[in-house]
Amino acid sequence: MNLLHIDSSISGQQSVSRQLTASIVAHLKGTTPNLEITYRDIVATPIPHLSPALHKRKSQALSESKVVDIQATSSQLDSKTRQLEQDFEIVTKALREFLAADIVVLGAPMYNFAIPSQLKAWIDCFTEPGQTFRYTEQGVEGLCADKRIIVASSRGGLYTAPSPMAELDHQERYLTSLFSFIGVSDITFVRVEGVNQGGEQRQRSLSAALAKIATLRVA
Amino acid sequence: MNLLHIDSSISGQQSVSRQLTASIVAHLKGTTPNLEITYRDIVATPIPHLSPALHKRKSQALSESKVVDIQATSSQLDSKTRQLEQDFEIVTKALREFLAADIVVLGAPMYNFAIPSQLKAWIDCFTEPGQTFRYTEQGVEGLCADKRIIVASSRGGLYTAPSPMAELDHQERYLTSLFSFIGVSDITFVRVEGVNQGGEQRQRSLSAALAKIATLRVA
Repeated sequence: MNLLHIDSSISGQQSVSRQLTASIVAHLKGTTPNLEITYRDIVATPIPHLSPALHKRKSQALSESKVVDIQATSSQLDSKTRQLEQDFEIVTKALREFLAADIVVLGAPMYNFAIPSQLKAWIDCFTEPGQTFRYTEQGVEGLCADKRIIVASSRGGLYTAPSPMAELDHQERYLTSLFSFIGVSDITFVRVEGVNQGGEQRQRSLSAALAKIATLRVA
Repeated sequence: MNLLHIDSSISGQQSVSRQLTASIVAHLKGTTPNLEITYRDIVATPIPHLSPALHKRKSQALSESKVVDIQATSSQLDSKTRQLEQDFEIVTKALREFLAADIVVLGAPMYNFAIPSQLKAWIDCFTEPGQTFRYTEQGVEGLCADKRIIVASSRGGLYTAPSPMAELDHQERYLTSLFSFIGVSDITFVRVEGVNQGGEQRQRSLSAALAKIATLRVA
């Protein structure tokens, strides 16, 4: 069983979402036999933004073959093409990791009411027709029904309904929309809220999240 | 009067949102005396993602002074620090442009139900306490009440209520939340929907958008 562990917080050692993903992965590792773990830190090694050249390169590769082929011909290429091939290699690797994962443990802080730009760039790697969803005569079909997503969510304020701030939540609500679209029905949020509202609120919310993690089981 | 024109589509000549922003800016230029226009293409020249180092550099500068001071000492710096100073210069310039703008014409396509990662990185430049909002004893106060935002929105499907897809709109709804938070009440959407649903739908929606643009006036 493959677990993909993603971190996207810029707060390093202070990060609540990184603390949560580490706890979730450690817990699942201790309770699940034969768990293969892949780790990706998309702050330390950012996913490139989509660009016209990268989009074209991805489209070409996807139309050629379902299994994307990365050709190691970089020595013959000029620097602009070499950069493009490097970027293409990163987004292709991120796509493959996502496709191979049975469980994704996703660290997702809220920055300015939405996910980090790095996390959007990661999502753009795998939200591709023919890979994680497809168009049929009956409409769109998600292809990721077998995956489980566990989101470690951290946010400075209180955004869970009935909070008056709930309408400003474009982080968890977006992730729910996106993963539902590609067919994932098993989405769990482990959440720490009010991180910026003082040590007591932070600690209480963190304790509740850690207690929830202790109950997580791989089906 | 200052107008800031932002494009974020990766579709180049084929881009609907770029066509719309160009039309909006041309129309306003023709109907408004003394309009100073600043243009920024955040695909051609991307805004760097937030990173621990960049976040720290921004925090330092903001605590030192409201008017951010960029020191030209790059010849003395190593390459990592030089890259950080370059990134800091880009995000500071983007912040200043936004603060100086009376009108922002923002090209914002929907990619995977949300805004492009480049656009999130741009938003992170100016969504800063003390710059575009502040904390008071009565709560958060937006500081951008005098700005007007005109969003050129393009999306492949139909996401306007009562469409069943409306819940998947984390592009216009996010932009509305964000700009409202920093105090902007004058937000106009010029929208082309169903861009991927055939030439007829695209053309009909585009014609309606261009007709709307012809009615725009600077107050």
